[in-house]
Amino acid sequence: MEQDQLLKVLQDVANAALTPADAIQKFGNESFEELDYAKIDTTRTRRTGYPEVIYGAGKTAEQIIGIVTAMKERQKSILATRVDSKKAAAILKTLPFLDYDATSETLIARAKKVEEVGNIAIVTAGTSDMKVAEEAAVTAEIFGNHVTRIYDVGVAGIHRLFAKLEIIRQANVVIVIAGMEGALTSVVGGLVDHPVIAVPTSIGYGSNLGGMTPLLTMLNSCSSGISVVNIDNGFGAAYNASMINRLISEAHE
Amino acid sequence: MEQDQLLKVLQDVANAALTPADAIQKFGNESFEELDYAKIDTTRTRRTGYPEVIYGAGKTAEQIIGIVTAMKERQKSILATRVDSKKAAAILKTLPFLDYDATSETLIARAKKVEEVGNIAIVTAGTSDMKVAEEAAVTAEIFGNHVTRIYDVGVAGIHRLFAKLEIIRQANVVIVIAGMEGALTSVVGGLVDHPVIAVPTSIGYGSNLGGMTPLLTMLNSCSSGISVVNIDNGFGAAYNASMINRLISEAHE
Amino acid sequence: MEQDQLLKVLQDVANAALTPADAIQKFGNESFEELDYAKIDTTRTRRTGYPEVIYGAGKTAEQIIGIVTAMKERQKSILATRVDSKKAAAILKTLPFLDYDATSETLIARAKKVEEVGNIAIVTAGTSDMKVAEEAAVTAEIFGNHVTRIYDVGVAGIHRLFAKLEIIRQANVVIVIAGMEGALTSVVGGLVDHPVIAVPTSIGYGSNLGGMTPLLTMLNSCSSGISVVNIDNGFGAAYNASMINRLISEAHE
Amino acid sequence: MEQDQLLKVLQDVANAALTPADAIQKFGNESFEELDYAKIDTTRTRRTGYPEVIYGAGKTAEQIIGIVTAMKERQKSILATRVDSKKAAAILKTLPFLDYDATSETLIARAKKVEEVGNIAIVTAGTSDMKVAEEAAVTAEIFGNHVTRIYDVGVAGIHRLFAKLEIIRQANVVIVIAGMEGALTSVVGGLVDHPVIAVPTSIGYGSNLGGMTPLLTMLNSCSSGISVVNIDNGFGAAYNASMINRLISEAHE
Amino acid sequence: MEQDQLLKVLQDVANAALTPADAIQKFGNESFEELDYAKIDTTRTRRTGYPEVIYGAGKTAEQIIGIVTAMKERQKSILATRVDSKKAAAILKTLPFLDYDATSETLIARAKKVEEVGNIAIVTAGTSDMKVAEEAAVTAEIFGNHVTRIYDVGVAGIHRLFAKLEIIRQANVVIVIAGMEGALTSVVGGLVDHPVIAVPTSIGYGSNLGGMTPLLTMLNSCSSGISVVNIDNGFGAAYNASMINRLISEAHE
Amino acid sequence: MEQDQLLKVLQDVANAALTPADAIQKFGNESFEELDYAKIDTTRTRRTGYPEVIYGAGKTAEQIIGIVTAMKERQKSILATRVDSKKAAAILKTLPFLDYDATSETLIARAKKVEEVGNIAIVTAGTSDMKVAEEAAVTAEIFGNHVTRIYDVGVAGIHRLFAKLEIIRQANVVIVIAGMEGALTSVVGGLVDHPVIAVPTSIGYGSNLGGMTPLLTMLNSCSSGISVVNIDNGFGAAYNASMINRLISEAHE
Amino acid sequence: MEQDQLLKVLQDVANAALTPADAIQKFGNESFEELDYAKIDTTRTRRTGYPEVIYGAGKTAEQIIGIVTAMKERQKSILATRVDSKKAAAILKTLPFLDYDATSETLIARAKKVEEVGNIAIVTAGTSDMKVAEEAAVTAEIFGNHVTRIYDVGVAGIHRLFAKLEIIRQANVVIVIAGMEGALTSVVGGLVDHPVIAVPTSIGYGSNLGGMTPLLTMLNSCSSGISVVNIDNGFGAAYNASMINRLISEAHE
Amino acid sequence: MEQDQLLKVLQDVANAALTPADAIQKFGNESFEELDYAKIDTTRTRRTGYPEVIYGAGKTAEQIIGIVTAMKERQKSILATRVDSKKAAAILKTLPFLDYDATSETLIARAKKVEEVGNIAIVTAGTSDMKVAEEAAVTAEIFGNHVTRIYDVGVAGIHRLFAKLEIIRQANVVIVIAGMEGALTSVVGGLVDHPVIAVPTSIGYGSNLGGMTPLLTMLNSCSSGISVVNIDNGFGAAYNASMINRLISEAHE
Repeated sequence: MEQDQLLKVLQDVANAALTPADAIQKFGNESFEELDYAKIDTTRTRRTGYPEVIYGAGKTAEQIIGIVTAMKERQKSILATRVDSKKAAAILKTLPFLDYDATSETLIARAKKVEEVGNIAIVTAGTSDMKVAEEAAVTAEIFGNHVTRIYDVGVAGIHRLFAKLEIIRQANVVIVIAGMEGALTSVVGGLVDHPVIAVPTSIGYGSNLGGMTPLLTMLNSCSSGISVVNIDNGFGAAYNASMINRLISEAHE
Repeated sequence: MEQDQLLKVLQDVANAALTPADAIQKFGNESFEELDYAKIDTTRTRRTGYPEVIYGAGKTAEQIIGIVTAMKERQKSILATRVDSKKAAAILKTLPFLDYDATSETLIARAKKVEEVGNIAIVTAGTSDMKVAEEAAVTAEIFGNHVTRIYDVGVAGIHRLFAKLEIIRQANVVIVIAGMEGALTSVVGGLVDHPVIAVPTSIGYGSNLGGMTPLLTMLNSCSSGISVVNIDNGFGAAYNASMINRLISEAHE
Repeated sequence: MEQDQLLKVLQDVANAALTPADAIQKFGNESFEELDYAKIDTTRTRRTGYPEVIYGAGKTAEQIIGIVTAMKERQKSILATRVDSKKAAAILKTLPFLDYDATSETLIARAKKVEEVGNIAIVTAGTSDMKVAEEAAVTAEIFGNHVTRIYDVGVAGIHRLFAKLEIIRQANVVIVIAGMEGALTSVVGGLVDHPVIAVPTSIGYGSNLGGMTPLLTMLNSCSSGISVVNIDNGFGAAYNASMINRLISEAHE
Repeated sequence: MEQDQLLKVLQDVANAALTPADAIQKFGNESFEELDYAKIDTTRTRRTGYPEVIYGAGKTAEQIIGIVTAMKERQKSILATRVDSKKAAAILKTLPFLDYDATSETLIARAKKVEEVGNIAIVTAGTSDMKVAEEAAVTAEIFGNHVTRIYDVGVAGIHRLFAKLEIIRQANVVIVIAGMEGALTSVVGGLVDHPVIAVPTSIGYGSNLGGMTPLLTMLNSCSSGISVVNIDNGFGAAYNASMINRLISEAHE
Repeated sequence: MEQDQLLKVLQDVANAALTPADAIQKFGNESFEELDYAKIDTTRTRRTGYPEVIYGAGKTAEQIIGIVTAMKERQKSILATRVDSKKAAAILKTLPFLDYDATSETLIARAKKVEEVGNIAIVTAGTSDMKVAEEAAVTAEIFGNHVTRIYDVGVAGIHRLFAKLEIIRQANVVIVIAGMEGALTSVVGGLVDHPVIAVPTSIGYGSNLGGMTPLLTMLNSCSSGISVVNIDNGFGAAYNASMINRLISEAHE
Repeated sequence: MEQDQLLKVLQDVANAALTPADAIQKFGNESFEELDYAKIDTTRTRRTGYPEVIYGAGKTAEQIIGIVTAMKERQKSILATRVDSKKAAAILKTLPFLDYDATSETLIARAKKVEEVGNIAIVTAGTSDMKVAEEAAVTAEIFGNHVTRIYDVGVAGIHRLFAKLEIIRQANVVIVIAGMEGALTSVVGGLVDHPVIAVPTSIGYGSNLGGMTPLLTMLNSCSSGISVVNIDNGFGAAYNASMINRLISEAHE
Repeated sequence: MEQDQLLKVLQDVANAALTPADAIQKFGNESFEELDYAKIDTTRTRRTGYPEVIYGAGKTAEQIIGIVTAMKERQKSILATRVDSKKAAAILKTLPFLDYDATSETLIARAKKVEEVGNIAIVTAGTSDMKVAEEAAVTAEIFGNHVTRIYDVGVAGIHRLFAKLEIIRQANVVIVIAGMEGALTSVVGGLVDHPVIAVPTSIGYGSNLGGMTPLLTMLNSCSSGISVVNIDNGFGAAYNASMINRLISEAHE
Repeated sequence: MEQDQLLKVLQDVANAALTPADAIQKFGNESFEELDYAKIDTTRTRRTGYPEVIYGAGKTAEQIIGIVTAMKERQKSILATRVDSKKAAAILKTLPFLDYDATSETLIARAKKVEEVGNIAIVTAGTSDMKVAEEAAVTAEIFGNHVTRIYDVGVAGIHRLFAKLEIIRQANVVIVIAGMEGALTSVVGGLVDHPVIAVPTSIGYGSNLGGMTPLLTMLNSCSSGISVVNIDNGFGAAYNASMINRLISEAHE
């Protein structure tokens, strides 16, 4: 669907290098691979800058094995998120080259040398937010970003945050992860001059409503420079942060 | 319904100072005054420590005039909240001894000398929270509390809060009033060692949901020592704060 | 971050007792202790009047053991809430000096002599609210408050409440704990002249919505003098009540 | 659609008093009258015991005039609810035999002698609930019930309720009307042994959510014997209460 | 707290049959029995017409055993609702005189002869609503009502309802129980001239929202004569229906 | 973006009837017309079967005039929905060839001869649903469908519906429009063997929640064959019904 | 309740072929079969065009066996949805002629020759939506429709959808199934000229709210021609699509 | 509160250039200016990179005049958002140097030469989203960014988007603004390799819920690289986009 790709096909047709009938086939079939249960998006790197990542939550171990196997032929790094330990064990039997990280619940195959560029700070309010934070950290690292972790600096003891403020301010992008009432985001947002990506977590109880409360807090922040992703979406925050960090880092080069 | 009152009646009956038939009348009728549309609670001061306050929102000017007139005979200070300027003008024609405060939308008759005791700090996140803050301030003052106002110190510019921290920490009770995402409450809660009463305001838009967002933020605060009242309920916060401040102040005497 | 602490450092610098470079280190590092997964707030007692309490819900047994061990060196009393019986058993193997209370799901190490001052009344609507009530009671007691328990006096049989009214009215602060529709709070609020802290519980079904119904009931109470904490937050209510009770008790001295 | 009606038609057909073709016409057309915009249910009295009442909220003055005119030929008493004063003025010009009650916003034509039977108690928490209460009272009276009004006895001053308890307990049915948090319902429900019909009102602000809070309170009441109608639905409560009161009163005869 | 009880005490005091000091004791202590975890309301029958029923959901087997044992001395019939089969088994070991009904999850001890009066129709939309329906039926029967069950007559096949209409119309009160969208209630409400008590059930999925959808449907019904109880509250519906049925039946005598 | 269109362009390029550079221009620019504030979709008829309809709610009179003027050159029939009477008056001054229908709030220019095919039944529960019903009717008619209106046959008087059942069953598609609790949809759905498209309306009050209640009712219907559109979306229902009616009617030819 | 059936009975009565007393019996009892727990709707095929389908979710294995056995005598094809694998195993022991499909969780008995007519396209956004999609596919097939499956073409890689667009456009009806944010529906709706039935799924997390987010997305679609069924309701979508597809296919004959 | 500022003060104190007592004053008072109703954050540029912007919605004309006047002395560019036309007229009388933009409802004073760097694309789904889009555009421009506007390219006519895709892909950051169901965001997110900031708007009706539907859509997007701001928050999106665009642009220099 990309214009340059289209132009190329059109030119081939114009040059008789391609018949119209063949051309039309190309548009559909070349850019993904069909499994019974999935269509693997093989041109995503070219289109959005990153390879497809496997969201493991709604898939069986068999389906993940199938998708990883198909992907493996085209891309060096593989990342599957939301793979619980039981499912991971089943997958590792068939695909022993994968690494499983139990905290972040991710399965990874890493291209040998990923040079980490720039700096993404990952800041959490509490110890319980660590699972989401590590999903973000692992994702950012496999995408080639340097990551700085600053955990458990919530506003109930705000001096802990201030002690780490200089480190946070040195990052190109800051990911703030918080459950409960999520107030940490607004405080960080008021103190740094780089983009803040906020991740509400489902940590809390009662009127926390499964993370809806910190989500609403973050969306309504009185501080500017904050944008928000879905509850517990560590991967999504890292994806965003990675885009920004890489654009800045590449521009520096 | 109070035990000592009951005991007294029983003793009077035992002493033949009262017939059972008369006694039973007492229980019902003595402690309020009946208007057509309202039953004024004349024993509230004895029972809860404060006179009845008129909540003006659902009442006509005529009803408020009637209630004030009936109250006037029994209590020196009168407070009516949520009286909009139009309704106030109509009331003031009949009851010129009342004062109207347009910011807080309160009507007041003040007993001549109210000695203000203790100290209640009223802290707001933004300029727009002032209406609720003044409802709290006026209420607290008429109930005999000394009030310190610290307005517009929201966390987007957190140094404004820190500059006022010592003043805030000197209060017996702190009322924190905030709309938007209400994060100020958690920050203050982590920094003071006195009770914090949080008032969410309906200031905000979109997913603020008419104040539900700061309400949820405050209820889920990671800081301890915070309790919450209804959205925009400046009066309620002041009532609570006043109870606490007076108990401490009286104990000091 | 406290002004007096800051002033002291500045004076030391002025007196050449401290170099600026050393001074700046102090601000960050001295007031908490870093574990891998947590930053223990070691100055909280000085800042807010109470030691840090461990919220056990989102933490592993290993993390709680680590935090208790680190805390143990600095403070005599330790309290961990929301520790289920399985997690507690694992912790007690390593830390046998702790006591576990199964009803309130708390782990406690008590300083030898805590003199209990003042009086906090804890009132529940039903038998099922006992778990939350005991979390409040245990917390209040470890913080040095005298506690009076009045359980199962909901408004379906309101005479049970009236029979206990004198006892309730003698407390400095009243904690009212109720699930279902939470109406007990408004009734108590109309009958006592001391602060009422309301705790909605998740006891109920259907349109109770996990405690949202009593939460809303309590926030909208027609009685004054009531403030509210999060659903099932017995600890939070006790923390607030303790602050108020101690301020009154200390003022009396 | 009623079985006995159906049997009668079938018998007429069997007796040749009716042809099948004529019979089938009867089923559809006889029991309502068609206007352009409405189908007036002329058999409702026979079917449910009460004539059709006009719900004025979604209708124009012209439509209400048309419906009243059509009804007038068949039934003596007419009741239109939710008619605001402006719409009422327009209707009264054309239909001067109607009476308008501004508090309850009802238009009424009363059959000359309606003997009032039994007793329905209408109890409100506050002065502001009066509009809903009067809609209920007017409806109950036009349906031939004796009504006892007990207004402004909310639980903030619960002794006002106790003073009226004997009067309330003498009613066959009790309608309890309350906004704010609606706790009055549970208290009344625990003290009377007759059915209680609860009406939440939209009186309140903030987290009252337009009456959703007292609605939820009433549905979750810990007292038994309470059933609930829609927010502000004074008419519906009166309709229910009237059914019950009449069944009891008729059984007594 | 009842007026006649109060009058009697006052008269006894007046007659010197009682000292004031003794009198005051009576008010509090005589009308309930204190267990550690519960205050059994022993005067409820006198006050509301029915003995206290044990709501089993939030209580342990031990607590239920204790309460039943205490109740057993004063009342002949005992009913405990929401007792799952596991808890029931534990209770039956200690209290073998109880009967357990697995469909309705109720534990019962029945006074030998309960004459069933009047008629309550219990109508359900589907097979899956049977659990709630049986809770209602068992409750109504133990309270002495004649019950007629009409199950699985939802509006998807409305002729099933019409075939049972005459039976339904003969009842003094109709309980309609429905999950999904709850439309059955409105149809029944438009066809009968006796009170309809609606019980939404949590049967459904997706946007059914745990029964909130049929609850809202029932509250907004375009048919009159319907009042509503909480989701799955078969007991509550039966309690209401029983009150009405008994009042009618007793009046007939 | 359509395959046949793409194939045609490719063939033209292959035949040298088109240069690649020109071809690529075609893909973007030919299929809509750019105004400052809108991009008129000029190929929608070819793509989806119907011309673009103007949704008037968020647009100024000036913008609507501009869009109509641009459309007028390409299509004969024009339909603008949600145009209030004030906005309509302003538009009619400039574009007097348009007709305004005040009930449905639509502006129309009709191609001279639209032959109406098939049959769509539009059924409403009440008089107040007429506005939405007429939006549906006007839309269906301008799209060339025969429409049968059956208004005010809600389930409170279900015999009104049965009397019209044969007429409803003759339609190819049935649109059911209802506010309040929306139960009519389920009843109709159980009685007809053609598709039912349900439109919830915002008619109602209190817990109707602006139409969310009938929306949920319709989505959870126990009857099959029902699909749902947005609240008050008469246009959307008509568009769907028209698609189905035309496919059936065309297939018959 | 159908008019022609009614007319026939009336004519039989008129012809003395039937007594009124016998006639009235017919209305009720003939059109369903009574089990203890269910009333099987035996005239549904005649009334709505399809046999009754068993919704297995709220029923026990025993109840499903009973219903299937009763149905088996009257209809050749049987479909039970929402039967989990455990329940299915129990049923298959007694009814071995049934087939169980584990993906769609359906139990089926198929009439020997079902000729599949027309074409229904079932399009899913992701692999995880397959369960709902297969419930739709199995239902549509047993109802005699030809089904085309196009899975995993969500908008994150929109070229996958475009490659399948021609196939989708050839269907008489399109079912679009999507979780997460459900955007696929709007894209498909803008590109096809046949009816689109949208099924939101509960696939997602956090603010997906169990499928409420894609449900709302689909209801608010900016594309026309889309109607929506309940979350995860594959059966309902297939039922609707089948009705439309058959009407078109039959009209073609 | 910034470390370097703190270090500087400490050094001055160490150098005896400042007494501790004076030093402590500095911390609080220097970095904001106190008005009666506001504390203007004069160090925000240094701290977060942008000057303070006035959020006009909750402020009176007088308060805005006061704040602008105070700001004017320190910063060249001034931006006030959410100023309706009436309030703007009042302000312009006093401060004629401001420019008012009626579409975006912003008041602006522009520093003479703002060189616009980089490129931010602002993409809207419909004409009605223009108000929010222009708030974003005006904000981005005053912050020195080059802005490209692409309006009315919603997915109902997706070819309009594809025609503009190359332009959109050239931007450093893309702001996507959409009401209704907000599906445009996911489509854009799947096609560009730069960060996408999504702004839901309150454009829509019924189950749109004032913008909550597109907000949820955007948060749950199946495309990666999307983060979200509050409903209608054009300013917030521009602030975020500006941060990212400037970081990239500056890095390029």
